[in-house]
Amino acid sequence: MDVAEPRRPRVVIVGAGFGGLTVATKLAKADVDVTVLDRHNYHCFQPLLYQVATAELSPADIAWPIRHVLRRQKNVRVLLGTVDSIDLENRQVVADTVTLPYDELVLATGVTHSYFGNDEWEKWAPGLKRVEDATIIRRRLLIAFERAELSDDPAERERLLTFAIVGAGPTGVELAGSIIEVARHVMPNEFRHIDPRTARVILIEAGPRVLPAFPENLSAYTRESLERMGVEVMTSTRVTNCDETGVDLEGGRLEAATVIWAAGVVASEAGRWIGAQCDNAGRVIVNKDLSVPGRQEVFVIGDTASVKREDGSPVPGVAPAAKQMGAYVADVIASRARGAVPPPPFKYRHQGDIATIGRRSAVLKLGYMNLTGLIAWLFWCVAHIYFLIGARNRIAVAFKWVWDFATFQRGARLITDQRDQI
Amino acid sequence: MDVAEPRRPRVVIVGAGFGGLTVATKLAKADVDVTVLDRHNYHCFQPLLYQVATAELSPADIAWPIRHVLRRQKNVRVLLGTVDSIDLENRQVVADTVTLPYDELVLATGVTHSYFGNDEWEKWAPGLKRVEDATIIRRRLLIAFERAELSDDPAERERLLTFAIVGAGPTGVELAGSIIEVARHVMPNEFRHIDPRTARVILIEAGPRVLPAFPENLSAYTRESLERMGVEVMTSTRVTNCDETGVDLEGGRLEAATVIWAAGVVASEAGRWIGAQCDNAGRVIVNKDLSVPGRQEVFVIGDTASVKREDGSPVPGVAPAAKQMGAYVADVIASRARGAVPPPPFKYRHQGDIATIGRRSAVLKLGYMNLTGLIAWLFWCVAHIYFLIGARNRIAVAFKWVWDFATFQRGARLITDQRDQI
Repeated sequence: MDVAEPRRPRVVIVGAGFGGLTVATKLAKADVDVTVLDRHNYHCFQPLLYQVATAELSPADIAWPIRHVLRRQKNVRVLLGTVDSIDLENRQVVADTVTLPYDELVLATGVTHSYFGNDEWEKWAPGLKRVEDATIIRRRLLIAFERAELSDDPAERERLLTFAIVGAGPTGVELAGSIIEVARHVMPNEFRHIDPRTARVILIEAGPRVLPAFPENLSAYTRESLERMGVEVMTSTRVTNCDETGVDLEGGRLEAATVIWAAGVVASEAGRWIGAQCDNAGRVIVNKDLSVPGRQEVFVIGDTASVKREDGSPVPGVAPAAKQMGAYVADVIASRARGAVPPPPFKYRHQGDIATIGRRSAVLKLGYMNLTGLIAWLFWCVAHIYFLIGARNRIAVAFKWVWDFATFQRGARLITDQRDQI
Repeated sequence: MDVAEPRRPRVVIVGAGFGGLTVATKLAKADVDVTVLDRHNYHCFQPLLYQVATAELSPADIAWPIRHVLRRQKNVRVLLGTVDSIDLENRQVVADTVTLPYDELVLATGVTHSYFGNDEWEKWAPGLKRVEDATIIRRRLLIAFERAELSDDPAERERLLTFAIVGAGPTGVELAGSIIEVARHVMPNEFRHIDPRTARVILIEAGPRVLPAFPENLSAYTRESLERMGVEVMTSTRVTNCDETGVDLEGGRLEAATVIWAAGVVASEAGRWIGAQCDNAGRVIVNKDLSVPGRQEVFVIGDTASVKREDGSPVPGVAPAAKQMGAYVADVIASRARGAVPPPPFKYRHQGDIATIGRRSAVLKLGYMNLTGLIAWLFWCVAHIYFLIGARNRIAVAFKWVWDFATFQRGARLITDQRDQI
């Protein structure tokens, strides 16, 4: 490395989600050396995590080794490690496994679930952001049915067969729809003592309607669809406490063995690492070129960045936004590397909103077009297969969806960890 | 249940491996009430566990919920639980979740790895019997490459890229062949600092040859094949200690970050539960009808039973033996239930031996016929797909095998648990 020719700029990307991975791939032809650091060895396709949590897919179906994705890109190396701190003065990232000097730094470390100051609730109401979260939720879901089959106490059986989902954004809606399908279509005939169809799935939302980011008519359609499927939808209802046996709501108590938290997110620690100014959700407030004020060599992108649209509303925390920011920052870095004029300020292009409700049912807003039902659902299926990484996963997931759609099965119903065991 | 008509015999089966599951399915038409108790909610297809350990398949590909397998059999119920003790006098099984009275009891609880009195070695040299074992080994295998990529110490890098497998039965051979393929064909081009092809895979066997249960010419063929693939085979070599950084061998020290134990098994605790006479490996010595001496209502089958062939040699601990014993005991129980003459003593029919070595290579002994190479390998593939449970898994596994054979990929390279994290 220590040859006389001028050193190539060292770009360090922390986090290989949608944003970080896009930066790396878009820098393929730039004259820079890229290091991708992640605490996991895989990129996880988060939009389908709820299908791992509800026993439809295996973790490996939606996760792919980062180094495999980037294997052909000779200017990239991939390292496993967790950031301890960032030394802005000396320009280096200090991780548990390695210290990485940088010339350009991209922080793309995403979000985690937020309990609004009640972190102790996490134990009773896990959220869904990582592969581990999904297998924890899958285990709780499946063990609840097993315990109910073993119980002779009607009240306890009812509690075990009550599933509460807090938060009715796309993840909450998808979980509720998927869990009621497990109870009504997958489990029946397999139990002798309980009737899984009697399970209650309750979707709790503090705001006045489900899918608050969607147009009102799509929210209304979604609520109706969920209720037709058997989900109980409670809007304008705030959770005041979570404990071992259930949740306290503003209106009263709900005994529920399984509670899943889909209510809110808080940004990763990136803002703290760099001592930057953050918004209420911990997102770093960035310049128009997504760099950090006063540190033009440090960029924050994706869910960790607080970015405004032209109309002043915030850019939403969705995969397309992270990818757009990643592509933009790669452009800025590549321009700098070749001494070219930097691109104009980042501009977010909203592509649309989509959420799936259940078999043959989804809602889709694409520009001025609102779609519901089967057509939206088919669009959702095709789009998600398309965005998966790797032909092997695309084929495997498509096969499992077709098979399980036809047979009402779920293929990954394993309770695989002892820690939480019955 | 408390009606006046005579009560149907209650059959309790502990363990839903190959043996226990066969008893349950063969009792489908018998006039008995069957309860299957298992500590997991799934039946695991153990012959392919090594493919989960080496990142080829996902756990759900080789495991299927027991209650799904038995869902159509109305005289069976499935319960999740771990046996604490068995009360032979009052004829009941006491589990952590439930107490089960029985009229006929079948113990089919399998084996676990044996460290020959050195249980502290397990921490450094995990064995491969359960799904959890497979994901532990997968994690260690993948983390070793990640750590090597991060290391600047040549000796440490070499230690990290040394994989020792203790025991050269079918599992040891399959693991060795599979790991060398990962190092030589899957990993190259994905690392920048190390060359994964330099990894050493060492198969250590205390006896004079690999696959001791196979004919000598097949052992020789297997050894040659493994060595051609790059595996170092050490026969007549005993392991005298395992510790944090490697293993001590009779001939010297081997520094190895990953050690896998495939050297021996010991029967489950079934013998202790019933205070029965056991052989050296903890297997219960049973009567000719597989019942326990003095307790004709208690049967022990599969790997937990010590059964002799007509020539006095032991029945091997393989899936076909467990299935044959399961079918036999179901016949005994069904005969008793209808007051018929019991079947003649159990007789084991050995179907053959098969082990796969790597791509296009396996050894097969079927009666007097010995096969090697591609034909044996194709036979192995077809047989294993055939014996998997459920068309969905058969298709998914076949697709993954074909895909990965063509592309040299591995589809489940996830490091998914934090506990062992780098």
